[in-house]
Amino acid sequence: MNAKVSFMYSTLAAAIAGISGSALAADEPIQPIRPVQQINLSQVELGKKLYFEPRLSKSGFISCNSCHNLSMGGTDNLKTSIGHNWTQGPINAPTVLNSSLNVAQFWDGRAADLKAQAGGPIANPGEMAASHTLAVEVLSSIPDYVIEFKQVFDTDQITIDEVTQAIAEFEKTLVTPNSRFDRWLLGDKNALNATELAGYNLFKTSGCVACHNGPGVGGNSFQKMGLVEPYKTDNKAEGVAGLTGKDADRFKFKVPTLRNVALTYPYFHDGAAQTLTDAVDTMGRLQLGKKFTPEENAQIVAFLKTLTGEQPTFLIPILPPSNDKTPPPKPFG
Amino acid sequence: MNAKVSFMYSTLAAAIAGISGSALAADEPIQPIRPVQQINLSQVELGKKLYFEPRLSKSGFISCNSCHNLSMGGTDNLKTSIGHNWTQGPINAPTVLNSSLNVAQFWDGRAADLKAQAGGPIANPGEMAASHTLAVEVLSSIPDYVIEFKQVFDTDQITIDEVTQAIAEFEKTLVTPNSRFDRWLLGDKNALNATELAGYNLFKTSGCVACHNGPGVGGNSFQKMGLVEPYKTDNKAEGVAGLTGKDADRFKFKVPTLRNVALTYPYFHDGAAQTLTDAVDTMGRLQLGKKFTPEENAQIVAFLKTLTGEQPTFLIPILPPSNDKTPPPKPFG
Repeated sequence: MNAKVSFMYSTLAAAIAGISGSALAADEPIQPIRPVQQINLSQVELGKKLYFEPRLSKSGFISCNSCHNLSMGGTDNLKTSIGHNWTQGPINAPTVLNSSLNVAQFWDGRAADLKAQAGGPIANPGEMAASHTLAVEVLSSIPDYVIEFKQVFDTDQITIDEVTQAIAEFEKTLVTPNSRFDRWLLGDKNALNATELAGYNLFKTSGCVACHNGPGVGGNSFQKMGLVEPYKTDNKAEGVAGLTGKDADRFKFKVPTLRNVALTYPYFHDGAAQTLTDAVDTMGRLQLGKKFTPEENAQIVAFLKTLTGEQPTFLIPILPPSNDKTPPPKPFG
Repeated sequence: MNAKVSFMYSTLAAAIAGISGSALAADEPIQPIRPVQQINLSQVELGKKLYFEPRLSKSGFISCNSCHNLSMGGTDNLKTSIGHNWTQGPINAPTVLNSSLNVAQFWDGRAADLKAQAGGPIANPGEMAASHTLAVEVLSSIPDYVIEFKQVFDTDQITIDEVTQAIAEFEKTLVTPNSRFDRWLLGDKNALNATELAGYNLFKTSGCVACHNGPGVGGNSFQKMGLVEPYKTDNKAEGVAGLTGKDADRFKFKVPTLRNVALTYPYFHDGAAQTLTDAVDTMGRLQLGKKFTPEENAQIVAFLKTLTGEQPTFLIPILPPSNDKTPPPKPFG
């Protein structure tokens, strides 16, 4: 093929790709994030308030958004989180973005879904340090909340069930469609440059995609951290073994989503990898037995950065005030 | 006057009041909050990001919004705030709402304006625990910030001067016009009910208005806490005496704004009054030598609740990510 024909051929191929983009994407191991589909909007609006509600914590200071900060990729960008009384958390806070796509919640999958997850931190002494009883008592003391729960759930009695349901429904809206990679998947073949495409090809051919696949580019299976070489860490988290007691499940964690990974540093369950370069290098060696060259590493990192989607944006919620009957927060002792 | 004539007279009076509302308001000791006037919008947008930016703190966890939470009346609703390493703050966090109307900033007025104030918490070891050098180093490592500072301030070198200038400009937008009381001041005589009006009259005739006046209903003078009876507290704050060393300035504090006071509980510099009822009772006795009856207290409280204005609403800012060169936060040690 001479240069001119080759050019025409590429142009034709691009045109075909443009037309049949979705068909091509179906052959890829990663699928685009879908924008929000069926949702209960009244629950979403209530859940948004509750997500930003520090009065669900004993101190009155910590909300869901404290550690899953929607200004920062749905994380706190800390190795491990800060909880009640400045308690150091045991594990890296996973992003809430696209968490509705996960097969289960928490690194060890101990919560089946977002609703089951939402109750955990509220009652965890090292996180929000309240109790479900206290959280419900606080909300039930505030007439505006009583009315909104009545409107949304047709109930006269707030329970933790409606609280976590509303938070989970809000979290379902926290998807990030329209990343450059998704536009490429959907047929815009100019959305990625040559380096990024080379990175994606390496990502597929090196085996990364064996675990990081699907719309979440992860989040849909549990895998052992340190398959080829053992993972060394001071972090005490055991992974699934903490639930099953089985030695074979030690260091088995939910594969994290790589969506918005450029925003969700530091990486791994212990937050030990501060940069994507580190994370890719470690993953290559420990999981795949591969030492990526600096160029390969840079290509994969370039690809990973194309996974940053549109961040959820919304008006900051205005919370209804406490009143004389509301149990005051107890930040100190 | 018979009932019918009386009714007509009231209607006529209301109509006149409606027409000449602003003239009448000029005779009142409280003036309406004006909506945002001249502002540098590019500084506002940058300042909004910085206001929500936890990387201005050593831990990477605390932002301006942590203690001056715009979902909760610009306060944390705690007696005293939680700072770095869960340090208990020395004084109640004042609301940031309408703080541009204050004669000076902080309870003791030690900062002349919002810009001077903004630098304080960043470098305070018990609050955000960073330094101005560190804060600037972090921002300067992030290309998106470098570009935005260049756009906004036409500078290649970020300094704390631009950081605090942008935060202050954002804070100037945090005014809360259009409260029911302001609508009354502006001529809508139906905006207040009889109880609220009775409360306002008591507020004026009892002497509250001697200190709580102007558009901020306070914030424009320094007064001694415990004029008639001494104020008893375990709180160690000395007020203006902490700056001047003069015994006469002991317990002299900036009179807090009563705008949005229904949202800014608990009250006083030590946060000792949890409810408006408590606060009104204590103020009456200690500052005015008056013991309000329960009915009078309730009327004043009803008036105070009409001072809640429109809360600032805006899209939550999305912060640009750190990168390999950004100094990581140090939450623990």
